Amino acid sequence: MNSSAPLYEGKAKKVFATENPAEYIVQYKDDATAFNAQKRGEWAGKGATNNAITAHLFPLLEAAGIPTHFIEQLSDTEQRVKAVTIVPVEVIVRNIAAGSFSKRLGVEEGEKLSRPVVEYCYKSDALGDPLINTDTALALGWASEEDLTRIRELALKVRDFLVPYFEKRGVTLVDFKLEFGKLPGGEIVLADEISPDTCRFWDAQTGEKLDKDRFRRDLGGEAEAYAEMLRRVTSEV
Amino acid sequence: MNSSAPLYEGKAKKVFATENPAEYIVQYKDDATAFNAQKRGEWAGKGATNNAITAHLFPLLEAAGIPTHFIEQLSDTEQRVKAVTIVPVEVIVRNIAAGSFSKRLGVEEGEKLSRPVVEYCYKSDALGDPLINTDTALALGWASEEDLTRIRELALKVRDFLVPYFEKRGVTLVDFKLEFGKLPGGEIVLADEISPDTCRFWDAQTGEKLDKDRFRRDLGGEAEAYAEMLRRVTSEV
Repeated sequence: MNSSAPLYEGKAKKVFATENPAEYIVQYKDDATAFNAQKRGEWAGKGATNNAITAHLFPLLEAAGIPTHFIEQLSDTEQRVKAVTIVPVEVIVRNIAAGSFSKRLGVEEGEKLSRPVVEYCYKSDALGDPLINTDTALALGWASEEDLTRIRELALKVRDFLVPYFEKRGVTLVDFKLEFGKLPGGEIVLADEISPDTCRFWDAQTGEKLDKDRFRRDLGGEAEAYAEMLRRVTSEV
Repeated sequence: MNSSAPLYEGKAKKVFATENPAEYIVQYKDDATAFNAQKRGEWAGKGATNNAITAHLFPLLEAAGIPTHFIEQLSDTEQRVKAVTIVPVEVIVRNIAAGSFSKRLGVEEGEKLSRPVVEYCYKSDALGDPLINTDTALALGWASEEDLTRIRELALKVRDFLVPYFEKRGVTLVDFKLEFGKLPGGEIVLADEISPDTCRFWDAQTGEKLDKDRFRRDLGGEAEAYAEMLRRVTSEV
Protein backbone atom coordinates (compact mmCIF):
# COMPACT_ATOMS: atom_id res chain seq x y z
CA MET A 1 0.00 0.00 0.00
CA ASN A 2 2.73 2.45 0.92
CA SER A 3 5.31 1.68 -1.68
CA SER A 4 6.02 5.38 -2.19
CA ALA A 5 8.57 7.26 -0.13
CA PRO A 6 7.19 8.69 3.12
CA LEU A 7 6.57 12.41 3.40
CA TYR A 8 8.28 12.21 6.75
CA GLU A 9 10.05 9.49 8.67
CA GLY A 10 10.47 9.93 12.39
CA LYS A 11 12.06 7.72 15.01
CA ALA A 12 8.97 5.54 15.49
CA LYS A 13 6.60 6.36 12.61
CA LYS A 14 6.40 7.12 8.90
CA VAL A 15 3.88 9.51 7.40
CA PHE A 16 2.64 8.96 3.83
CA ALA A 17 0.65 11.20 1.51
CA THR A 18 -2.57 9.78 0.06
CA GLU A 19 -4.61 10.55 -3.05
CA ASN A 20 -6.64 12.88 -0.85
CA PRO A 21 -4.49 15.90 0.01
CA ALA A 22 -6.45 16.38 3.23
CA GLU A 23 -5.37 12.97 4.60
CA TYR A 24 -2.16 11.19 5.54
CA ILE A 25 -1.46 7.60 6.50
CA VAL A 26 0.70 7.05 9.57
CA GLN A 27 2.62 3.80 9.82
CA TYR A 28 3.94 2.77 13.23
CA LYS A 29 7.37 1.12 13.25
CA ASP A 30 8.83 -1.44 15.64
CA ASP A 31 11.90 0.77 16.17
CA ALA A 32 12.62 2.17 19.61
CA THR A 33 15.00 5.01 20.28
CA ALA A 34 15.95 6.90 23.41
CA PHE A 35 18.20 9.74 24.49
CA ASN A 36 17.75 11.54 21.18
CA ALA A 37 18.35 8.33 19.19
CA GLN A 38 21.72 7.63 20.81
CA LYS A 39 20.18 4.36 22.01
CA ARG A 40 18.37 2.22 19.43
CA GLY A 41 16.43 -1.02 19.53
CA GLU A 42 13.26 -2.63 18.29
CA TRP A 43 10.84 -5.37 19.18
CA ALA A 44 8.12 -7.16 17.25
CA GLY A 45 4.67 -5.78 17.91
CA LYS A 46 5.75 -2.39 19.24
CA GLY A 47 4.32 -0.47 16.29
CA ALA A 48 1.06 -2.42 16.37
CA THR A 49 0.64 -1.86 20.11
CA ASN A 50 1.23 1.87 19.92
CA ASN A 51 -1.07 2.14 16.90
CA ALA A 52 -3.84 0.27 18.76
CA ILE A 53 -3.47 2.32 21.97
CA THR A 54 -3.52 5.61 20.05
CA ALA A 55 -6.44 4.47 17.89
CA HIS A 56 -8.36 3.63 21.06
CA LEU A 57 -7.61 6.87 22.92
CA PHE A 58 -7.91 9.51 20.22
CA PRO A 59 -11.65 8.98 19.55
CA LEU A 60 -12.27 9.15 23.30
CA LEU A 61 -10.39 12.44 23.49
CA GLU A 62 -12.30 13.71 20.47
CA ALA A 63 -15.56 12.83 22.26
CA ALA A 64 -14.28 14.71 25.31
CA GLY A 65 -13.99 17.89 23.26
CA ILE A 66 -10.36 17.70 22.16
CA PRO A 67 -10.04 17.93 18.38
CA THR A 68 -7.52 15.41 16.99
CA HIS A 69 -6.02 14.48 13.63
CA PHE A 70 -7.25 10.88 13.93
CA ILE A 71 -9.70 9.47 11.37
CA GLU A 72 -9.53 5.66 11.57
CA GLN A 73 -7.33 2.67 12.15
CA LEU A 74 -6.51 0.98 8.83
CA SER A 75 -4.46 -2.02 9.83
CA ASP A 76 -2.31 -3.36 12.66
CA THR A 77 0.29 -0.69 12.11
CA GLU A 78 -1.49 2.00 10.13
CA GLN A 79 -4.00 4.73 10.77
CA ARG A 80 -5.55 7.39 8.59
CA VAL A 81 -5.25 10.94 9.91
CA LYS A 82 -6.04 14.46 8.80
CA ALA A 83 -3.18 16.18 7.00
CA VAL A 84 -1.77 18.76 9.41
CA THR A 85 1.30 20.90 9.67
CA ILE A 86 3.00 19.91 12.91
CA VAL A 87 3.68 22.83 15.26
CA PRO A 88 7.41 22.48 16.08
CA VAL A 89 6.75 22.89 19.80
CA GLU A 90 6.43 19.63 21.72
CA VAL A 91 4.44 19.77 24.92
CA ILE A 92 5.28 17.78 28.03
CA VAL A 93 2.75 17.62 30.84
CA ARG A 94 4.06 16.43 34.19
CA ASN A 95 2.05 15.26 37.20
CA ILE A 96 4.90 13.58 39.08
CA ALA A 97 8.63 14.33 38.87
CA ALA A 98 10.54 11.77 36.78
CA GLY A 99 13.18 11.37 34.10
CA SER A 100 14.94 14.46 32.77
CA PHE A 101 12.88 16.75 35.01
CA SER A 102 14.08 14.98 38.16
CA LYS A 103 17.66 14.91 36.97
CA ARG A 104 17.75 18.53 35.82
CA LEU A 105 16.12 19.96 38.94
CA GLY A 106 17.29 17.58 41.65
CA VAL A 107 13.73 16.52 42.49
CA GLU A 108 13.36 12.90 43.50
CA GLU A 109 11.64 10.69 40.93
CA GLY A 110 8.14 9.97 42.19
CA GLU A 111 7.57 13.32 43.96
CA LYS A 112 4.04 14.45 43.21
CA LEU A 113 3.99 17.98 41.81
CA SER A 114 1.71 20.39 43.65
CA ARG A 115 0.26 21.41 40.29
CA PRO A 116 0.73 20.16 36.73
CA VAL A 117 3.79 21.47 34.91
CA VAL A 118 3.56 22.13 31.19
CA GLU A 119 6.94 22.26 29.49
CA TYR A 120 7.69 23.13 25.88
CA CYS A 121 10.50 21.79 23.72
CA TYR A 122 11.60 22.81 20.26
CA LYS A 123 10.99 19.81 18.00
CA SER A 124 14.44 19.32 16.49
CA ASP A 125 16.26 16.00 16.37
CA ALA A 126 19.46 17.80 15.44
CA LEU A 127 19.34 19.87 18.64
CA GLY A 128 17.91 17.12 20.86
CA ASP A 129 14.49 18.75 21.37
CA PRO A 130 15.76 21.50 23.68
CA LEU A 131 13.59 22.94 26.42
CA ILE A 132 12.16 26.35 25.52
CA ASN A 133 9.47 28.62 26.83
CA THR A 134 6.61 30.38 25.11
CA ASP A 135 8.58 33.65 24.74
CA THR A 136 11.20 31.77 22.74
CA ALA A 137 8.60 30.06 20.52
CA LEU A 138 7.04 33.46 19.83
CA ALA A 139 10.33 35.31 19.24
CA LEU A 140 11.57 32.65 16.81
CA GLY A 141 8.22 32.37 15.03
CA TRP A 142 7.52 28.73 15.85
CA ALA A 143 3.94 29.41 16.95
CA SER A 144 1.61 32.34 17.48
CA GLU A 145 0.41 33.56 20.86
CA GLU A 146 -3.11 32.35 19.97
CA ASP A 147 -1.81 28.88 19.00
CA LEU A 148 0.22 28.55 22.20
CA THR A 149 -2.72 29.54 24.37
CA ARG A 150 -4.89 26.94 22.62
CA ILE A 151 -2.16 24.28 22.83
CA ARG A 152 -1.79 24.78 26.58
CA GLU A 153 -5.56 24.67 27.06
CA LEU A 154 -5.84 21.44 25.06
CA ALA A 155 -2.83 19.84 26.78
CA LEU A 156 -4.40 20.40 30.20
CA LYS A 157 -7.72 19.10 28.89
CA VAL A 158 -5.98 15.94 27.68
CA ARG A 159 -4.49 15.59 31.17
CA ASP A 160 -7.88 16.04 32.81
CA PHE A 161 -9.26 13.25 30.65
CA LEU A 162 -6.34 10.83 30.83
CA VAL A 163 -5.47 10.97 34.55
CA PRO A 164 -8.79 9.50 35.76
CA TYR A 165 -9.03 7.24 32.70
CA PHE A 166 -5.77 5.53 33.62
CA GLU A 167 -6.41 5.71 37.36
CA LYS A 168 -9.53 3.59 36.84
CA ARG A 169 -7.33 1.06 35.07
CA GLY A 170 -4.74 0.87 37.85
CA VAL A 171 -2.20 3.10 36.11
CA THR A 172 -0.63 6.33 37.35
CA LEU A 173 -0.03 8.78 34.51
CA VAL A 174 3.31 10.32 35.55
CA ASP A 175 3.94 12.52 32.51
CA PHE A 176 3.30 12.58 28.78
CA LYS A 177 4.41 14.30 25.59
CA LEU A 178 1.98 15.71 23.04
CA GLU A 179 2.36 17.17 19.59
CA PHE A 180 -0.15 19.41 17.91
CA GLY A 181 -0.86 20.09 14.27
CA LYS A 182 -2.59 22.82 12.34
CA LEU A 183 -5.33 22.13 9.82
CA PRO A 184 -5.33 24.19 6.61
CA GLY A 185 -8.07 26.36 8.15
CA GLY A 186 -5.82 27.16 11.12
CA GLU A 187 -7.50 24.95 13.74
CA ILE A 188 -5.09 23.38 16.25
CA VAL A 189 -5.65 19.62 16.70
CA LEU A 190 -3.93 16.95 18.76
CA ALA A 191 -1.60 14.93 16.52
CA ASP A 192 1.14 12.30 16.91
CA GLU A 193 0.40 9.46 19.35
CA ILE A 194 -0.38 8.65 22.98
CA SER A 195 1.38 5.43 23.92
CA PRO A 196 4.01 3.94 26.23
CA ASP A 197 6.54 5.64 23.93
CA THR A 198 5.22 9.09 24.83
CA CYS A 199 3.87 8.64 28.38
CA ARG A 200 5.25 7.41 31.68
CA PHE A 201 2.83 4.82 33.06
CA TRP A 202 3.39 3.33 36.51
CA ASP A 203 1.31 0.49 37.90
CA ALA A 204 -0.71 2.20 40.64
CA GLN A 205 -0.19 -0.69 43.10
CA THR A 206 3.35 -1.85 42.51
CA GLY A 207 4.93 1.20 40.85
CA GLU A 208 6.15 -1.06 38.05
CA LYS A 209 7.07 0.87 34.92
CA LEU A 210 4.83 0.08 31.95
CA ASP A 211 6.44 2.36 29.37
CA LYS A 212 9.57 3.17 27.38
CA ASP A 213 11.64 3.56 30.55
CA ARG A 214 11.89 -0.25 30.45
CA PHE A 215 13.89 0.20 27.25
CA ARG A 216 15.68 3.42 28.24
CA ARG A 217 16.87 1.92 31.52
CA ASP A 218 17.50 -1.65 30.33
CA LEU A 219 14.83 -3.08 32.63
CA GLY A 220 13.68 -5.70 30.10
CA GLY A 221 10.10 -6.81 29.48
CA GLU A 222 9.30 -3.97 27.08
CA ALA A 223 7.00 -6.02 24.86
CA GLU A 224 5.09 -7.40 27.86
CA ALA A 225 4.70 -3.94 29.43
CA TYR A 226 3.39 -2.42 26.20
CA ALA A 227 0.97 -5.33 25.74
CA GLU A 228 -0.21 -4.92 29.32
CA MET A 229 -0.87 -1.23 28.68
CA LEU A 230 -2.89 -2.07 25.55
CA ARG A 231 -4.91 -4.52 27.62
CA ARG A 232 -5.59 -1.92 30.32
CA VAL A 233 -6.32 0.93 27.91
CA THR A 234 -8.94 -1.11 26.09
CA SER A 235 -10.46 -2.70 29.19
CA GLU A 236 -13.98 -1.76 30.26
CA VAL A 237 -14.08 -0.65 33.89
CA MET B 1 35.03 46.21 58.69
CA ASN B 2 33.82 42.80 57.62
CA SER B 3 35.90 40.55 59.76
CA SER B 4 32.93 38.33 60.51
CA ALA B 5 31.98 35.40 58.28
CA PRO B 6 29.71 36.30 55.39
CA LEU B 7 26.05 35.30 55.50
CA TYR B 8 26.50 34.14 51.95
CA GLU B 9 29.43 33.85 49.58
CA GLY B 10 28.74 33.59 45.89
CA LYS B 11 31.03 33.31 42.91
CA ALA B 12 31.67 37.06 42.66
CA LYS B 13 30.34 38.61 45.88
CA LYS B 14 30.05 38.17 49.64
CA VAL B 15 27.06 39.31 51.64
CA PHE B 16 27.49 40.36 55.28
CA ALA B 17 24.97 41.02 58.03
CA THR B 18 25.12 44.40 59.78
CA GLU B 19 23.99 45.65 63.18
CA ASN B 20 20.77 46.68 61.45
CA PRO B 21 18.81 43.54 60.58
CA ALA B 22 17.17 45.39 57.69
CA GLU B 23 20.51 45.97 55.92
CA TYR B 24 23.30 43.90 54.42
CA ILE B 25 26.69 44.86 53.09
CA VAL B 26 27.68 43.41 49.72
CA GLN B 27 31.37 43.05 48.95
CA TYR B 28 32.41 42.60 45.32
CA LYS B 29 35.30 40.19 44.72
CA ASP B 30 37.90 40.15 41.96
CA ASP B 31 37.11 36.50 41.22
CA ALA B 32 35.70 35.55 37.84
CA THR B 33 34.02 32.25 37.11
CA ALA B 34 32.29 30.87 34.04
CA PHE B 35 30.50 27.71 32.91
CA ASN B 36 29.14 27.08 36.40
CA ALA B 37 32.53 27.73 38.01
CA GLN B 38 34.35 25.13 35.92
CA LYS B 39 36.51 27.99 34.66
CA ARG B 40 38.03 30.32 37.24
CA GLY B 41 40.14 33.44 37.14
CA GLU B 42 40.45 36.89 38.66
CA TRP B 43 41.82 40.29 37.86
CA ALA B 44 42.56 43.33 39.98
CA GLY B 45 39.82 45.93 39.90
CA LYS B 46 37.03 43.63 38.71
CA GLY B 47 35.09 43.86 41.98
CA ALA B 48 35.51 47.64 42.16
CA THR B 49 34.35 48.10 38.55
CA ASN B 50 31.23 45.98 38.99
CA ASN B 51 30.45 47.68 42.29
CA ALA B 52 30.77 51.12 40.66
CA ILE B 53 28.66 50.20 37.61
CA THR B 54 25.91 48.70 39.78
CA ALA B 55 26.01 51.63 42.21
CA HIS B 56 25.58 53.99 39.25
CA LEU B 57 22.73 52.10 37.57
CA PHE B 58 20.56 51.03 40.51
CA PRO B 59 19.59 54.57 41.62
CA LEU B 60 18.71 55.39 38.00
CA LEU B 61 16.47 52.30 37.85
CA GLU B 62 14.94 53.25 41.18
CA ALA B 63 14.17 56.71 39.76
CA ALA B 64 12.60 55.01 36.73
CA GLY B 65 10.11 53.25 39.00
CA ILE B 66 11.91 49.96 39.59
CA PRO B 67 12.32 49.26 43.31
CA THR B 68 15.80 47.92 44.14
CA HIS B 69 17.69 46.67 47.18
CA PHE B 70 20.41 49.33 46.74
CA ILE B 71 21.01 51.90 49.49
CA GLU B 72 24.49 53.39 48.96
CA GLN B 73 28.02 52.71 47.85
CA LEU B 74 30.32 52.40 50.87
CA SER B 75 33.74 51.89 49.37
CA ASP B 76 35.45 50.75 46.18
CA THR B 77 34.18 47.23 46.60
CA GLU B 78 31.27 47.55 49.03
CA GLN B 79 27.70 48.72 48.95
CA ARG B 80 24.94 48.81 51.52
CA VAL B 81 21.69 47.15 50.47
CA LYS B 82 18.33 46.30 51.97
CA ALA B 83 18.20 42.83 53.52
CA VAL B 84 16.13 40.67 51.17
CA THR B 85 15.43 37.01 50.69
CA ILE B 86 16.60 36.18 47.18
CA VAL B 87 13.94 34.54 45.01
CA PRO B 88 15.67 31.39 43.69
CA VAL B 89 14.56 32.11 40.13
CA GLU B 90 17.11 33.96 38.00
CA VAL B 91 15.75 35.96 35.11
CA ILE B 92 17.49 36.29 31.76
CA VAL B 93 16.22 38.88 29.31
CA ARG B 94 17.41 38.48 25.71
CA ASN B 95 17.25 41.04 22.93
CA ILE B 96 19.69 39.34 20.55
CA ALA B 97 20.57 35.64 20.33
CA ALA B 98 23.93 34.81 21.92
CA GLY B 99 25.72 32.37 24.19
CA SER B 100 23.83 29.36 25.54
CA PHE B 101 20.63 30.46 23.78
CA SER B 102 22.30 30.38 20.36
CA LYS B 103 23.99 27.08 21.06
CA ARG B 104 20.91 25.36 22.49
CA LEU B 105 18.54 26.48 19.74
CA GLY B 106 20.81 26.67 16.70
CA VAL B 107 20.19 30.40 16.27
CA GLU B 108 23.19 32.35 15.01
CA GLU B 109 24.81 34.62 17.59
CA GLY B 110 23.86 38.19 16.75
CA GLU B 111 20.38 37.44 15.35
CA LYS B 112 18.02 40.09 16.64
CA LEU B 113 14.99 38.53 18.34
CA SER B 114 11.64 39.71 17.01
CA ARG B 115 10.55 40.33 20.61
CA PRO B 116 12.33 40.13 23.96
CA VAL B 117 12.65 36.66 25.46
CA VAL B 118 12.44 36.28 29.23
CA GLU B 119 13.95 33.03 30.49
CA TYR B 120 13.92 31.69 34.03
CA CYS B 121 16.57 29.54 35.69
CA TYR B 122 16.55 27.82 39.04
CA LYS B 123 19.31 29.45 41.11
CA SER B 124 21.35 26.40 42.09
CA ASP B 125 25.12 26.16 41.68
CA ALA B 126 24.92 22.43 42.34
CA LEU B 127 22.57 21.94 39.37
CA GLY B 128 24.19 24.56 37.13
CA ASP B 129 21.26 27.02 37.22
CA PRO B 130 18.99 24.90 35.01
CA LEU B 131 16.44 26.49 32.69
CA ILE B 132 12.90 26.26 34.06
CA ASN B 133 9.57 27.84 33.29
CA THR B 134 7.04 29.54 35.53
CA ASP B 135 4.94 26.35 35.90
CA THR B 136 7.97 24.61 37.39
CA ALA B 137 8.73 27.49 39.77
CA LEU B 138 5.12 27.40 40.96
CA ALA B 139 4.87 23.61 41.26
CA LEU B 140 8.11 23.41 43.26
CA GLY B 141 7.21 26.39 45.45
CA TRP B 142 10.11 28.63 44.41
CA ALA B 143 7.88 31.66 43.85
CA SER B 144 4.21 32.58 43.87
CA GLU B 145 2.19 33.44 40.79
CA GLU B 146 1.95 37.03 42.02
CA ASP B 147 5.73 37.26 42.51
CA LEU B 148 6.46 35.83 39.07
CA THR B 149 4.08 38.25 37.40
CA ARG B 150 5.75 41.15 39.19
CA ILE B 151 9.25 39.84 38.41
CA ARG B 152 8.46 39.60 34.70
CA GLU B 153 6.95 43.08 34.70
CA LEU B 154 10.01 44.54 36.45
CA ALA B 155 12.47 42.64 34.23
CA LEU B 156 10.87 44.10 31.11
CA LYS B 157 10.85 47.54 32.72
CA VAL B 158 14.58 47.20 33.43
CA ARG B 159 15.05 46.29 29.76
CA ASP B 160 13.04 49.30 28.61
CA PHE B 161 15.27 51.54 30.70
CA LEU B 162 18.64 49.95 29.93
CA VAL B 163 18.38 49.41 26.15
CA PRO B 164 18.18 53.12 25.27
CA TYR B 165 20.52 54.03 28.15
CA PHE B 166 23.29 51.89 26.66
CA GLU B 167 22.38 52.72 23.08
CA LYS B 168 23.07 56.38 23.79
CA ARG B 169 26.50 55.32 25.05
CA GLY B 170 27.36 53.30 21.96
CA VAL B 171 26.63 49.91 23.53
CA THR B 172 24.19 47.23 22.37
CA LEU B 173 22.60 45.42 25.29
CA VAL B 174 22.44 41.85 23.97
CA ASP B 175 21.11 40.10 27.07
CA PHE B 176 21.28 40.33 30.83
CA LYS B 177 20.59 38.35 34.00
CA LEU B 178 18.65 39.73 36.95
CA GLU B 179 17.94 38.49 40.44
CA PHE B 180 15.11 39.67 42.60
CA GLY B 181 14.67 39.72 46.35
CA LYS B 182 11.76 39.95 48.70
CA LEU B 183 11.58 42.50 51.49
CA PRO B 184 10.13 41.36 54.84
CA GLY B 185 6.84 43.03 53.86
CA GLY B 186 6.67 40.93 50.70
CA GLU B 187 7.64 43.59 48.16
CA ILE B 188 9.71 42.31 45.22
CA VAL B 189 12.81 44.42 44.53
CA LEU B 190 15.66 44.18 42.05
CA ALA B 191 18.74 42.74 43.80
CA ASP B 192 22.18 41.41 42.83
CA GLU B 193 24.11 43.49 40.28
CA ILE B 194 24.06 44.82 36.74
CA SER B 195 27.58 44.69 35.32
CA PRO B 196 29.69 43.14 32.55
CA ASP B 197 29.48 39.93 34.63
CA THR B 198 25.73 39.74 34.21
CA CYS B 199 25.12 41.45 30.83
CA ARG B 200 26.36 40.99 27.29
CA PHE B 201 27.53 44.38 26.03
CA TRP B 202 28.64 44.80 22.41
CA ASP B 203 30.18 47.99 21.09
CA ALA B 204 27.45 49.33 18.79
CA GLN B 205 29.96 50.29 16.05
CA THR B 206 32.53 47.51 16.08
CA GLY B 207 30.63 44.66 17.76
CA GLU B 208 33.54 44.29 20.18
CA LYS B 209 32.58 42.39 23.31
CA LEU B 210 32.77 44.49 26.47
CA ASP B 211 31.70 41.85 28.99
CA LYS B 212 32.51 38.52 30.63
CA ASP B 213 32.60 36.75 27.26
CA ARG B 214 36.16 38.12 27.00
CA PHE B 215 37.00 35.86 29.95
CA ARG B 216 34.68 32.96 28.99
CA ARG B 217 36.09 32.79 25.48
CA ASP B 218 39.73 33.64 26.28
CA LEU B 219 39.64 36.83 24.23
CA GLY B 220 41.85 38.77 26.67
CA GLY B 221 41.46 42.41 27.65
CA GLU B 222 38.89 41.74 30.37
CA ALA B 223 40.09 44.50 32.70
CA GLU B 224 40.17 47.06 29.85
CA ALA B 225 36.68 46.08 28.64
CA TYR B 226 35.19 46.36 32.14
CA ALA B 227 36.90 49.74 32.67
CA GLU B 228 35.57 50.93 29.31
CA MET B 229 32.05 49.91 30.34
CA LEU B 230 32.38 51.82 33.62
CA ARG B 231 33.52 54.86 31.63
CA ARG B 232 30.53 54.61 29.27
CA VAL B 233 27.97 53.85 31.98
CA THR B 234 28.97 56.92 33.96
CA SER B 235 29.39 59.23 30.95
CA GLU B 236 26.95 62.09 30.46
CA VAL B 237 25.42 62.04 26.98
